[in-house]
Amino acid sequence: MKTEILWLLKGSRDYLSGQELCGRLGVSRTAVWKVIKQLQSEGYKIEAVRNKGYRLLEGGDVMTEAEIKSCMSGEGRERRVVCYDETDSTNTRAKYLAEEGAGEGTLVVAERQNAGKGRRGRSWVSPPGTGIWMSFILRPDMAPSQASMLTLVAALGVSEGIFQTVGVRPEIKWPNDLVLGGKKICGILTEMSTELETIQYVVVGIGINVNMEEFPEELSQTATSLYMETKKTWKRAPLISAVTDAFEQYFRIFLESGDLSALKADYESRLVNMNRMVTVMNPSGAYSGVCRGIDRNGELLVEREDGQLCHVRSGEVSVRGIYGYV
Amino acid sequence: MKTEILWLLKGSRDYLSGQELCGRLGVSRTAVWKVIKQLQSEGYKIEAVRNKGYRLLEGGDVMTEAEIKSCMSGEGRERRVVCYDETDSTNTRAKYLAEEGAGEGTLVVAERQNAGKGRRGRSWVSPPGTGIWMSFILRPDMAPSQASMLTLVAALGVSEGIFQTVGVRPEIKWPNDLVLGGKKICGILTEMSTELETIQYVVVGIGINVNMEEFPEELSQTATSLYMETKKTWKRAPLISAVTDAFEQYFRIFLESGDLSALKADYESRLVNMNRMVTVMNPSGAYSGVCRGIDRNGELLVEREDGQLCHVRSGEVSVRGIYGYV
Repeated sequence: MKTEILWLLKGSRDYLSGQELCGRLGVSRTAVWKVIKQLQSEGYKIEAVRNKGYRLLEGGDVMTEAEIKSCMSGEGRERRVVCYDETDSTNTRAKYLAEEGAGEGTLVVAERQNAGKGRRGRSWVSPPGTGIWMSFILRPDMAPSQASMLTLVAALGVSEGIFQTVGVRPEIKWPNDLVLGGKKICGILTEMSTELETIQYVVVGIGINVNMEEFPEELSQTATSLYMETKKTWKRAPLISAVTDAFEQYFRIFLESGDLSALKADYESRLVNMNRMVTVMNPSGAYSGVCRGIDRNGELLVEREDGQLCHVRSGEVSVRGIYGYV
Repeated sequence: MKTEILWLLKGSRDYLSGQELCGRLGVSRTAVWKVIKQLQSEGYKIEAVRNKGYRLLEGGDVMTEAEIKSCMSGEGRERRVVCYDETDSTNTRAKYLAEEGAGEGTLVVAERQNAGKGRRGRSWVSPPGTGIWMSFILRPDMAPSQASMLTLVAALGVSEGIFQTVGVRPEIKWPNDLVLGGKKICGILTEMSTELETIQYVVVGIGINVNMEEFPEELSQTATSLYMETKKTWKRAPLISAVTDAFEQYFRIFLESGDLSALKADYESRLVNMNRMVTVMNPSGAYSGVCRGIDRNGELLVEREDGQLCHVRSGEVSVRGIYGYV
């Protein structure tokens, strides 16, 4: 009911009478009043005027299940959302929830991670209150070997969700980073649990730097935030909601075609090193070539000097532009 | 120290004096006496005679870390062993421990599982006190696509470990069951967590029916126990230890060759339907042929009537002999 009341308050420019709220939700005035009090205690500024009703003055940057759901489209509000004030990592929580049976689409969000994870067991800096740390549980009916494509689908969703909300369109650094102004704004960590050739679940973790005003010395050359790029602070719940909606749409298109063929053009239009020189570093050495986009399986296409087109698989290699981080 | 005292008592036919125990372990008599009391309270019958020392009369079917380790070879005792009286499933516990960083070789054992897992999310009957429910954590440096071979390696280890201890040699029903007298004696469930093309960890779960005197009606045609096949009860800790040692040896051979080529002959000598008719059931239909063993990647070879040799991948299909369960 909290979600619905928030959603109604947000959708109304004028006062909403207690009577109307009761009528639309089929509950008592006391029940409505209790929820309003609860919302106020969470940081929402809600004006209550006798004979007029309730009006939401300001939402604050609240990260609760009700707030996140109230930003979502109708169908999205059916989604299970699990919020933590503080946790080890949303990916770890999502994996535990998935082990306990949590269904496809479950979204895990944390205000703060004390053991945030990056790729290959690296740690991920995730200070409280300034970033988005979220993970989706997915249970796609596909072969485990296809699941690495989900990282690319998620990158599209985050890029589009940020664009819808903030108005800037992050580029994608294949396979799992997003960049703005040549610096990292988002990282994606896809983990999977399988049993033989069957996927049990996939966890797609997304970390977005939102309102950080600066980064520690060692990260300042490679990391940025939406605040640093736009000089504005951003509420996180609408961002989470926009990313979720966009990811959901891309995910459906992906499932329909069974590969990335329908998303390839969109992906390449956001690809940071498209048609530029890149260096591919793999365990057996490095080589350079021109990035020519992706194939339908999400492998990066790199055209070497002799004209040979290499299909680069994620996970084995690191790919860099010839200058700096991207 | 408990492990060492148990191991010394087991290795000695005569009384072991308190002085000798103290000397060999570098601890006080009081410390030794305390451990002896603890062992007695766990069910060990230990005789203590003044001026003679201690003697182990009977071990009982104790499932503790110390008992399991005391049965292991020298190197095996370095292994981390985690024992539960009751847990949901040893595979789930192993996955959680692996998420928290537990190392390769960690062994999880439970006296009772209240949510034992079979393949494809099926449940697994695991009554207390009569079976072995154990899981290994592995962190092999290989591609995720190769990990399904670990199920075959584990099947070899269980078959050999049972043979060493009990004297009967279970056959392998590819890919993940062991059978005695045409009925199931063991099931293996291999689960894996990956990040893109990298294995984070593999959990190999092994369930062995040891001392069950009967099975419920619906299982009685397909399941059996070591007790039912040999008319003797078996202590579980030595069995766990033998399976662990055998698996460890096969695992090393497997890692050295990078595939099953060095284990193929051994595996095929235990394969239940070798050179017999089998039916392969996959989502698109069923076909029959003669089982011709496995290839180096662990795929089952089935020769169809027209001479075509099919390579059957685990996970996609179910394979049955033409008569009954095996």
